[in-house]
Amino acid sequence: MNYQAILEQIQTDIAPLLGQGRVATYIPALACANPKDFAMTLHLVNGESYHAGLVEKRFSIQSISKVFMYCIALSLFEENIYERVRVEPSGNPFNSLIQLEYENGIPRNPFINPGAIVVADMLTSYFGSSAEESILHYFQNTCDDFTITIDKEIFNSEHNSGYRNYALANLMKSFGNIHNDIEKTLDTYFNACSISANTAQLARSSLHLANNGIDPITANILLNPEHTKRINALMLTCGHYDASGEFAYRVGLPGKSGVGGGIIAIVPNIMSIAVYSPALNVHGNSFAGTKALELFTQYSGHTIF
Amino acid sequence: MNYQAILEQIQTDIAPLLGQGRVATYIPALACANPKDFAMTLHLVNGESYHAGLVEKRFSIQSISKVFMYCIALSLFEENIYERVRVEPSGNPFNSLIQLEYENGIPRNPFINPGAIVVADMLTSYFGSSAEESILHYFQNTCDDFTITIDKEIFNSEHNSGYRNYALANLMKSFGNIHNDIEKTLDTYFNACSISANTAQLARSSLHLANNGIDPITANILLNPEHTKRINALMLTCGHYDASGEFAYRVGLPGKSGVGGGIIAIVPNIMSIAVYSPALNVHGNSFAGTKALELFTQYSGHTIF
Amino acid sequence: MNYQAILEQIQTDIAPLLGQGRVATYIPALACANPKDFAMTLHLVNGESYHAGLVEKRFSIQSISKVFMYCIALSLFEENIYERVRVEPSGNPFNSLIQLEYENGIPRNPFINPGAIVVADMLTSYFGSSAEESILHYFQNTCDDFTITIDKEIFNSEHNSGYRNYALANLMKSFGNIHNDIEKTLDTYFNACSISANTAQLARSSLHLANNGIDPITANILLNPEHTKRINALMLTCGHYDASGEFAYRVGLPGKSGVGGGIIAIVPNIMSIAVYSPALNVHGNSFAGTKALELFTQYSGHTIF
Amino acid sequence: MNYQAILEQIQTDIAPLLGQGRVATYIPALACANPKDFAMTLHLVNGESYHAGLVEKRFSIQSISKVFMYCIALSLFEENIYERVRVEPSGNPFNSLIQLEYENGIPRNPFINPGAIVVADMLTSYFGSSAEESILHYFQNTCDDFTITIDKEIFNSEHNSGYRNYALANLMKSFGNIHNDIEKTLDTYFNACSISANTAQLARSSLHLANNGIDPITANILLNPEHTKRINALMLTCGHYDASGEFAYRVGLPGKSGVGGGIIAIVPNIMSIAVYSPALNVHGNSFAGTKALELFTQYSGHTIF
Repeated sequence: MNYQAILEQIQTDIAPLLGQGRVATYIPALACANPKDFAMTLHLVNGESYHAGLVEKRFSIQSISKVFMYCIALSLFEENIYERVRVEPSGNPFNSLIQLEYENGIPRNPFINPGAIVVADMLTSYFGSSAEESILHYFQNTCDDFTITIDKEIFNSEHNSGYRNYALANLMKSFGNIHNDIEKTLDTYFNACSISANTAQLARSSLHLANNGIDPITANILLNPEHTKRINALMLTCGHYDASGEFAYRVGLPGKSGVGGGIIAIVPNIMSIAVYSPALNVHGNSFAGTKALELFTQYSGHTIF
Repeated sequence: MNYQAILEQIQTDIAPLLGQGRVATYIPALACANPKDFAMTLHLVNGESYHAGLVEKRFSIQSISKVFMYCIALSLFEENIYERVRVEPSGNPFNSLIQLEYENGIPRNPFINPGAIVVADMLTSYFGSSAEESILHYFQNTCDDFTITIDKEIFNSEHNSGYRNYALANLMKSFGNIHNDIEKTLDTYFNACSISANTAQLARSSLHLANNGIDPITANILLNPEHTKRINALMLTCGHYDASGEFAYRVGLPGKSGVGGGIIAIVPNIMSIAVYSPALNVHGNSFAGTKALELFTQYSGHTIF
Repeated sequence: MNYQAILEQIQTDIAPLLGQGRVATYIPALACANPKDFAMTLHLVNGESYHAGLVEKRFSIQSISKVFMYCIALSLFEENIYERVRVEPSGNPFNSLIQLEYENGIPRNPFINPGAIVVADMLTSYFGSSAEESILHYFQNTCDDFTITIDKEIFNSEHNSGYRNYALANLMKSFGNIHNDIEKTLDTYFNACSISANTAQLARSSLHLANNGIDPITANILLNPEHTKRINALMLTCGHYDASGEFAYRVGLPGKSGVGGGIIAIVPNIMSIAVYSPALNVHGNSFAGTKALELFTQYSGHTIF
Repeated sequence: MNYQAILEQIQTDIAPLLGQGRVATYIPALACANPKDFAMTLHLVNGESYHAGLVEKRFSIQSISKVFMYCIALSLFEENIYERVRVEPSGNPFNSLIQLEYENGIPRNPFINPGAIVVADMLTSYFGSSAEESILHYFQNTCDDFTITIDKEIFNSEHNSGYRNYALANLMKSFGNIHNDIEKTLDTYFNACSISANTAQLARSSLHLANNGIDPITANILLNPEHTKRINALMLTCGHYDASGEFAYRVGLPGKSGVGGGIIAIVPNIMSIAVYSPALNVHGNSFAGTKALELFTQYSGHTIF
């Protein structure tokens, strides 16, 4: 079966499931998404791309931004990053404070909220007032698309109701693991979460992660090969909060989800994938998106295992 | 042995212990206290009072204010208070977030930080912008001393470095258990903590708790008898954070400590006691103060058990 | 109102509540109790006693035995007891393993299962094969009634289905806090839990705790005054598992409950109380029994606060 | 660099590290291992094999047996397995009871002790009294070597001092997640842990996991391709207790360690690896073994990411 046929088969299979699960409602701006929306893009390292569904529809990438922030931080700070954020699965929901308190304010990994807030703090220290702009520019560069913007309505909504993120940041500051003003660090974090993109752009932005860090279209070196492998390893073990093991077990590809309904996944040396459907399962991952990736791995036989 | 002789004996016994433990340093304004300071006052319901040590020395009452805030709230809201804050010992340090997360933002009791922040929030809702003033006035009234003030240097210090309290308040707000702006509620809370008093004033302010809620000097009814018993019960089970059991076991009196180094204790129907020494044990309670109360209960035979 | 009138009023008030809650079913032998049974005894230190309900009905004293085991251990081992079991409220259900794991196998207090198992282990080391007999004899002596026996059907039921107690004992043994064979220590523990008594006997057995450790009828010295106060303090802070704070707050007397439906309570210097009703509230304490004690404290005005 | 040269380079690099870390001492029989021992085997799916160090030295495979037990259970029970044991990383040490209590006796994954005990219980139900023999036979079959035996000295040592495993089994039985007698189930579990093998045998036994479940030498079908992928996914996310994320991040291969000092790792479609060195790091994984695999992935470029 060729890739276009696979996408069409997935779209058929997934149709009855659309709308199952629940759209994120923790901020008002996400709550109005249509739970039946669906889109999927495959982007091959040879330059081909395949699409299904609402491929033009832009959505809030949310936690997928954690991957890009960590890519920047790993490039800048290398081994120094590990004393402030670890690389272990957490076994807890994305925004839990419990582990953080037991472990003295050092988050388990950069793909849960506290970890990404620490990474945002490191980038805020490095870039100062241009942190938001620098992250956006980095993401635009990975997409090779400079029309990408930050959705300020989402940003404001996060900012005004993100009490748990404020709790996490304050707790870590009490342990000395946040160096900037909490407002400044969370501004950086909320801005990164509020980047909007469609599946075509997201798959494009992740393509270098399937190609040892080099964008195969522009030949830009975006990440070194060692760091690229580590990002993929981290997506596999920690990319889906407390359902990361299930995703590795059923899908078998490195991936990262966001509560906006997007998921990216990587088939090393072959392709990047982006999928979108805003209704979430109980773990906060796209219900139909997860299912679509599981079907993709069955139909294509692609898995890292 | 008469009470004055008991106080003098305690002062002799305690002298070699002064300076053991550590002065609170979580805010700069507390760190400069002299760890060897000591004062103790007994105030009998018959009007007599006995003193030892630096009885004029004012200090920050800190968590002892939690008792007075809860007295106000219990009078105002009665049974409605329990859905927002419980009356169980926590078994955890005063500022732990773990239990709060497992128990959906409902604090275990009003004498740990999150519980007192919820009480401060209730008082902020009720009194609006005059909450701070209303609490101060209530405390002045219990002392029958209108020279009592709030130490604004302490307040500013709490405000600027109280990250863990901000974490607690934000976490509870994410569960819907803080109704006002976090800044407003914490302002009320930090102001109450920053009230300054000496042991003579503190013992006087607690005297009604030894007398079924009636100030025996002024005959003012400050609390009803039922509420008075409950406040005493709560001080016994929850008054010393995760050393409350030890205090009940060794001292056997209802009491409440503060990280400023003060402790109040109640001998029902007989007297109130205040003691001060700023060096703290590992649980955040006055080291010499706890020891002084243990000696007092031995020498006087007063205990509720 | 005299005591007999109070008991009759309580019986009237409590009648509509009988049967609310649930009889313990974790072991088959307890599950057949009649949820509507009720009995209450007041035993004054002056020798008078007052009764209501099924005062002849014997039931399994279960966790009330923890008080008697701790009395023996405190007399024998004094200060050496504290390195193996603490005196703090646990803030957790009676049989939780979590705190025990965080705190290296040292139980919070002797009135939760792991604490009582450690006490049983200490008594097993001291008395060897006569531990069971020694505990029974001590209890008979406090009652001045040598007809008291151990219900072997209850014992067998505990023994065969007490998996969680085996888990607790094994966990503590892995930390070195159980010194005997697990079977031997748990035999001692299960035998003590399986003592049967009625409310008249239970109130009688607790009478010395209201009288500084001296049985006022026989003049036997059963406990020294200091230890007696400590037992009462411990019952107040830890006597009702994770509802101990609520019991102190509502009833205001030292007390200890058992899942068999019994509760003892102490009014220092005045009387001991025993109540029985086997239907339990969610915390594992007698529903009607707790209510009866709350009413008693209201009608009589007796409270330690 | 060819594989033999890589092994020799690793042996040179690793030499100064041998003896760092600590040999497991929780059972006496493991404590006498020589902390400087080292062995490593690569077994290619094309039949070639390469060795370094003490390749004849047999050691206790310990937790590596969890992989083989789960392979049997997955083949036998398929989807029915997931209601009794999940597939998520635990974020906790291998023998923690905390998570188990919060999650009602359902272990996070089959590669931590409680998970493997549940799997042993399923196999005990299925095979009855021949469970031990069936597991040994399965392992012999994967090795194609029927000289493999169970080390009964190790078994007895586990049996007599495995208090924490008894605690885990009893806790799960209290939740209904152990169906057989605890002694029977733990016998099965301890026997599987006590299988002895050398690195040549261990690599051979894992070879089918690199070849879609088919033993490339004998052409025996040992596991179906889907199950093989899942086993590999599980080894990647859960194979090294609370250092699984670190292993995925640094080594990037599915693997499973045992406290005997062995580790297996899989390069899908290419080879299986076994390494041995008994001195462990703080997470209970072979110190030199982990380092050797990290070097192997650097020198060979083999990784799944």
